[in-house]
Amino acid sequence: MGLYPPSLGRLIEELSKLPGIGNKSAERLALHVLRSPKELAEGLAQSLLDVKEKIRFCSVCFNLADTDPCPICTDHRRENGMLCIVEGPGDQLAIEKSGAFQGKYHVLQGVLSPLDGIGIEDLRVSELMSRLKTENIKEIILALNPTVEGEATASYLTDLLRGKDMAISRIAFGIPLGGDLKYIDTMTLKRSLDNRASCDS
Amino acid sequence: MGLYPPSLGRLIEELSKLPGIGNKSAERLALHVLRSPKELAEGLAQSLLDVKEKIRFCSVCFNLADTDPCPICTDHRRENGMLCIVEGPGDQLAIEKSGAFQGKYHVLQGVLSPLDGIGIEDLRVSELMSRLKTENIKEIILALNPTVEGEATASYLTDLLRGKDMAISRIAFGIPLGGDLKYIDTMTLKRSLDNRASCDS
Repeated sequence: MGLYPPSLGRLIEELSKLPGIGNKSAERLALHVLRSPKELAEGLAQSLLDVKEKIRFCSVCFNLADTDPCPICTDHRRENGMLCIVEGPGDQLAIEKSGAFQGKYHVLQGVLSPLDGIGIEDLRVSELMSRLKTENIKEIILALNPTVEGEATASYLTDLLRGKDMAISRIAFGIPLGGDLKYIDTMTLKRSLDNRASCDS
Repeated sequence: MGLYPPSLGRLIEELSKLPGIGNKSAERLALHVLRSPKELAEGLAQSLLDVKEKIRFCSVCFNLADTDPCPICTDHRRENGMLCIVEGPGDQLAIEKSGAFQGKYHVLQGVLSPLDGIGIEDLRVSELMSRLKTENIKEIILALNPTVEGEATASYLTDLLRGKDMAISRIAFGIPLGGDLKYIDTMTLKRSLDNRASCDS
């Protein structure tokens, strides 16, 4: 457009490549960078380069980490018998933040999605099967997202793991805490009715 | 927190220093950077460094530019007699995008704000007065934002420029196009009534 000085235009273009950042937000962010001390731009630039250089996949659980194996895989205080299977690093982070899980993880790095050409061989399933042979896993929790692809992957894994000597469960889906039945979508409501839990127990 | 690998944690921290980006968005962006090709991180990092190195203030209009004087100040196709006074580079950009102004700009680099300790000497007002002596300005348009500080700055400048042989105007404030009287705030509505324009003209 020639509206911006070239270097500013390029920063706006690069920023707008990020998800959820449109041209307007990119412009606002770029102007903020211009107004701020040089250290802000330099710190951000350096951390962008660092993260791509240092972060690796853990060769055990395939989560992202600065070290291999990752700190969770080498943490002897964590329960070895429990394995939580997630789609990606973001999901693993969310569970870790909740503090509700003390076992170990296995990151599939995706879910089955035939339309996108993602099949079993693209996921870390064979690596999961190897772990089951060497580690003494007693329980597997499938923490896959309640999407069509997540459901398909969960049922594939359930079939695959059936017959092995371990408990297999899925995290519960239903009304979120603080949610309101009036405003919840019908699929979630249906799920929460189907999965109702007895009040006796 | 120790939840993230150190380099990822640092990227999240740096990203969340940007305005409108909270910890959650910063995490999402950082994970996107991790998933993306190295070129995305490198391109963004380089443009962040470039913009701080190359962008200067134009010594004539005090807008941001890669060159000094800026392309607008040196563009002989633009009307020399009209000067549009704005608070900052973002405001200048917005006007330039509208394509509705063909004159030149003067960027004050702020507005009067006694509470923040910003007085006249912090703004580019003396530079404006120098321009008025050397350039043949026939009309000044005050395009300051309708905030308390913008209003104060506009009336200060109006007083300062009164008596000089030039027209002084402010951009119009009122109901935005596509706006709805039912939902507009009362101050804007009051302003649009006070500033009503005759239908005869």
